[in-house]
Amino acid sequence: MRESLIAAAFQLFLERGFEQTTIDDIVALAGVGRRSFFRYFPTKEDVVFPDHERCLTDMTEFLQQQSPDGDPVAHVCDAARLVLRMYGENPAFSVQRYRLTKKVPGLRAHELSVVWRYERTLAEYLRARYAARPDGTLRADVIAASVVAAHNHALRSWLRSGGRGDAIKDVDHALDYVRDAWSEDPAGRGIDGRDDKEDVIVLISRRKAPMWRVIQGIEAALDEA
Amino acid sequence: MRESLIAAAFQLFLERGFEQTTIDDIVALAGVGRRSFFRYFPTKEDVVFPDHERCLTDMTEFLQQQSPDGDPVAHVCDAARLVLRMYGENPAFSVQRYRLTKKVPGLRAHELSVVWRYERTLAEYLRARYAARPDGTLRADVIAASVVAAHNHALRSWLRSGGRGDAIKDVDHALDYVRDAWSEDPAGRGIDGRDDKEDVIVLISRRKAPMWRVIQGIEAALDEA
Repeated sequence: MRESLIAAAFQLFLERGFEQTTIDDIVALAGVGRRSFFRYFPTKEDVVFPDHERCLTDMTEFLQQQSPDGDPVAHVCDAARLVLRMYGENPAFSVQRYRLTKKVPGLRAHELSVVWRYERTLAEYLRARYAARPDGTLRADVIAASVVAAHNHALRSWLRSGGRGDAIKDVDHALDYVRDAWSEDPAGRGIDGRDDKEDVIVLISRRKAPMWRVIQGIEAALDEA
Repeated sequence: MRESLIAAAFQLFLERGFEQTTIDDIVALAGVGRRSFFRYFPTKEDVVFPDHERCLTDMTEFLQQQSPDGDPVAHVCDAARLVLRMYGENPAFSVQRYRLTKKVPGLRAHELSVVWRYERTLAEYLRARYAARPDGTLRADVIAASVVAAHNHALRSWLRSGGRGDAIKDVDHALDYVRDAWSEDPAGRGIDGRDDKEDVIVLISRRKAPMWRVIQGIEAALDEA
């Protein structure tokens, strides 16, 4: 019944427009009663984004299950991938919804509030992980915003293209970009984001350090290779 | 008249609640006609955020005036400070509005849409500046989101505190945090954010480079100091 309500709603939104479609129109086309609609969807906006609540719950659970010793930036990047996975479950529906959302200010506002909830979910996790750090809450908020922006950059490109191309690869690339900037455990990536662990070293030294100490540092880094 | 409409609206929002106040109530208290209200404010939400349109215009103009050779990250940080300046023009009003916005979902949604427009203004500027870079649009979107998150982190702390403390100092600190992470021209800051340009060098080298080339690189870096 939930699926037939979603299908009826989208058919009418595309035919008549979102504002011109009433909940009565939707339940009539789906052949169900008005109360059935509200059993699944609090508002007309929610029928456009039927899976975000589930995805938000999945994201919270996923983060709770991660090792407290793991790289927090990597974990929030993985959590963001759950959103892409949801969009990828039904690409045609996702593309239709994207086009509709762009046209209807009320849906755009609803989508922004959903994006904000994802961002807060990631930020709350990071705030707990960074609780002992100076600037921990600032770091958490900025990284959460970076991750959401990178994910949505790639997701929206894919939706704009009509669902062509490799969304997973593009989202991975965008999230790696953020992870390289913020992670303190960048998992074998070079400083410029290429997978070239094998041929880059980075040395940081006090400028006034004696040259023998600098060379000793280089030799130690090379030995570790 | 604009100011008296804002004052009347806030008095009623605080006394009766936002949803329970009509535009007719506001114009009656302000002693003006209904058409006067709509001359200044398209909706009831806009009377709560009366200066964002001006601030968005100021932000766009400010960015257009910046040198095309300057550090783009520094320029968007400075542009974000215009928002703080607007909030600081009337701290008591800003704190009242913050408390009201937290309580009213419709205002919260409206605020998110305003924040989104600031973020897009910064991102469009950065996209133009990074047009020639690979990943230029990704970099632009992520930096814009980081700057907005850092600014709002500090702004909201200040609003939550009831407008106590030094908002300018806190916003500067938060924006420096982002600038240190993303800028390629970090204005005399060390890699860890301390002002210690004088005693840190960073050398990046291919791991397989011969030692003489590594040492040559260090010597060249020291000579540049």
